[in-house]
Amino acid sequence: MQDNLKADERIDELHRNGYKIIQNMNKFCFGMDAVLLSGYAKVKQNETALDLGTGTGIIPILLEAKTEGKHFTGLEIQEESADMARRSVAMNRLNSKIDIITGDIKEASGIFGLASFDVVTSNPPYMNDNHGITNPDLPKAIARHELLCTLEDVVREASKVLRPGGRFYMVHRPFRLVEIINTLSAYKLEPKRMKLVHPFVHKEPNMVLLECIKGGGSMIKVEAPLIVYKEQNVYTDEIYDIYGY
Amino acid sequence: MQDNLKADERIDELHRNGYKIIQNMNKFCFGMDAVLLSGYAKVKQNETALDLGTGTGIIPILLEAKTEGKHFTGLEIQEESADMARRSVAMNRLNSKIDIITGDIKEASGIFGLASFDVVTSNPPYMNDNHGITNPDLPKAIARHELLCTLEDVVREASKVLRPGGRFYMVHRPFRLVEIINTLSAYKLEPKRMKLVHPFVHKEPNMVLLECIKGGGSMIKVEAPLIVYKEQNVYTDEIYDIYGY
Repeated sequence: MQDNLKADERIDELHRNGYKIIQNMNKFCFGMDAVLLSGYAKVKQNETALDLGTGTGIIPILLEAKTEGKHFTGLEIQEESADMARRSVAMNRLNSKIDIITGDIKEASGIFGLASFDVVTSNPPYMNDNHGITNPDLPKAIARHELLCTLEDVVREASKVLRPGGRFYMVHRPFRLVEIINTLSAYKLEPKRMKLVHPFVHKEPNMVLLECIKGGGSMIKVEAPLIVYKEQNVYTDEIYDIYGY
Repeated sequence: MQDNLKADERIDELHRNGYKIIQNMNKFCFGMDAVLLSGYAKVKQNETALDLGTGTGIIPILLEAKTEGKHFTGLEIQEESADMARRSVAMNRLNSKIDIITGDIKEASGIFGLASFDVVTSNPPYMNDNHGITNPDLPKAIARHELLCTLEDVVREASKVLRPGGRFYMVHRPFRLVEIINTLSAYKLEPKRMKLVHPFVHKEPNMVLLECIKGGGSMIKVEAPLIVYKEQNVYTDEIYDIYGY
């Protein structure tokens, strides 16, 4: 298996179905955000799901392991990352379940067509201040900063490719919550469920997980908080559960 | 002092400056929401504050005790409740610091004028389903259900009576958070700080506290959660602190 690795790449265990993933810690690697999103999103039997900005393909691969969904697609603009994702899919023998498409989030509805998915997920770039980003940082910067797409691009395309009643799952940063909610509402993706993720119980949240329904009515369930650490360096049971340890 | 009480009224201690309040448990009484809002709102030296839908006057009275604010006004549509609030103000010898005005939230900007306050607070009716409300319930129902004013009325009038840069503090129910944020944004009351109140640490929140700035920029601080009980019937230290026990 090692012979499909390129320079600086390594293979990590995913603790689900024996699945593994190829990562390059210098350029493309997944964070806790993606894992939590894969635990928050629901893909039901016979449903199809699209992940916008899939990076290493972590979300489609974990969703294939965790859900009953029929088919998963990952859209990624960076070819080097998409190539890694494709090799991870092949390594896990998931070619018939997961497609990785190289392409631009801004053009997702053109690529896939309107109302073409039951579920859309995204762990988009969080930061909208792009100061001081230089060429060598680009692969990571594109994943973290809104260099190639904005929050509005992600939300607009998610709304377009979802069927009526389809579900959009996103992880983002709480400091942008007002803008997130306004944008989701503007594109008829009604937030129905929200979970704030706190590193410790008495700390402010550093992530927010959202479930939206396309064309849903106005009423949201703000859930119990998800606490990451019960003490320094010790995850809570809920986190161990999501990671599958 | 007892001679200024009417039928079914009683006097309760507020544990602040020796202040007391007149309540009628059958008709008008304050909840934890009002106390938490008075702990969340900031009124600075020389600032003036208006409470929209003041009920028993609990919020202006607590804010007078807890803050350095110069003057406080409570607006209340139910004359019987406003009369109780006025007698509580007099009982605490706060006539020079607090005015209770009988009037309609929907007309607040007409009554007080545009840009006339530094701070506005509100613990408005939470419920927008008005099914099955009958006459005998009216005094409580008006406080709890949007019979006489809607969320949009409260937000619109708060925005109008606030000076630019002024602050709006509201307590509400999390299930209406999306509508709340969209409405605040529409009236240029940018949510800048939010605190969710959870009865227990692993339970979903049942109240949300918000601080908004009129004309503020888009970035919100979602704060550490406020947990009410550390075990059954035992408040957390933070709650004891807010209540002043």
